[in-house]
Amino acid sequence: MITDLTHTLKNGITIWPGSPTPSFNQINNISKDGFAQIAINMCTHMGTHIDAPAHILANTKTLDQFPLNKFIGPAIVLDVSKMTSISLEFLKAKEQVINKVDFVLFYSGWQHKWNSPAYSEAFPSLTQEATTWLLNFNLKALGFDYFSIDDLESKELPNHRLVLAKELLIIENMNNLDKMLGKEFELNCIPMKIKDADGAPVRVFGRTY
Amino acid sequence: MITDLTHTLKNGITIWPGSPTPSFNQINNISKDGFAQIAINMCTHMGTHIDAPAHILANTKTLDQFPLNKFIGPAIVLDVSKMTSISLEFLKAKEQVINKVDFVLFYSGWQHKWNSPAYSEAFPSLTQEATTWLLNFNLKALGFDYFSIDDLESKELPNHRLVLAKELLIIENMNNLDKMLGKEFELNCIPMKIKDADGAPVRVFGRTY
Repeated sequence: MITDLTHTLKNGITIWPGSPTPSFNQINNISKDGFAQIAINMCTHMGTHIDAPAHILANTKTLDQFPLNKFIGPAIVLDVSKMTSISLEFLKAKEQVINKVDFVLFYSGWQHKWNSPAYSEAFPSLTQEATTWLLNFNLKALGFDYFSIDDLESKELPNHRLVLAKELLIIENMNNLDKMLGKEFELNCIPMKIKDADGAPVRVFGRTY
Repeated sequence: MITDLTHTLKNGITIWPGSPTPSFNQINNISKDGFAQIAINMCTHMGTHIDAPAHILANTKTLDQFPLNKFIGPAIVLDVSKMTSISLEFLKAKEQVINKVDFVLFYSGWQHKWNSPAYSEAFPSLTQEATTWLLNFNLKALGFDYFSIDDLESKELPNHRLVLAKELLIIENMNNLDKMLGKEFELNCIPMKIKDADGAPVRVFGRTY
């Protein structure tokens, strides 16, 4: 069973405030040209995507420098939909399951606000203490159904810096995380293969066997 | 073991003659903006990508209308690197293995010519007779390490029309197919999730267990 954890790319999707507007416009059609084709204009950090260390930290790895097994492995989704922030205490209670996986994903419910102004409301982000504690595990990435591992207003991006410095990747703007609550599954988040990618769109999915 | 079967997207990649030039340019950098970001400008049929029926045939399915299991399954690579075309006779000798898989991929050696003018030399394409015979199987897609399932000069695109009418997808411009010769493996070709996608770039990979 395969579950798509990706938002659809199309005109009008939610973007990080101030980013250039993406477009997905048909430039060829069958009646005029004999074939249909869409021109994709977007940035590496739009839609469901992964942040590489090189997104924020100079002289660190881009996505294309990681082996593909960095992007596949066991995953869990934690329900943070009733919280205003994700505390160390909450995570410690989940230590046993975190120990068994490569990917920890956080379901806040923001996925349901995608493509609406409410997506920019304050979401339950990790405290720095909680983020630091997650570095004790041998995780491959953290994933969220919202914009950022840091608060929306953050300029210093402390959580980004903490995790990316350890080559722990960040998956942002995920979808359908509620469908994977309470399940043991394999996550696959192999991103678009772009040279020197500071980040890249990804078609991420969960797989149960 | 995971094997990447995808070409890297970057400035200067090989494109179908006459297509608009794609670009992958850094528009934000860490020293100026505090973060790095690349603007992706490309079309749905560039790089390693999948053709949907709607690429050529009016009122047929786009990629986003297929369930994800359309894009995963057992695969084989056939070696056509010594041929000028792929005949029915050649395929019939492989009937037993074709019967066992969802994906038949063709290694011509053109992958080594990617990003050089030689990529536009005549490649070993399927005869219409061979293409028609492949429709007898319950395949999900055919894949090639070159531009097209039709001859480069073809205007009528008969092979495209034959397979897409049966919702047999086409994966073009694959890479590393030689690494999978003689292997039984699982192919994964879940494409970018673009609304109404007549085609889409894909990070395709092979997996052995």
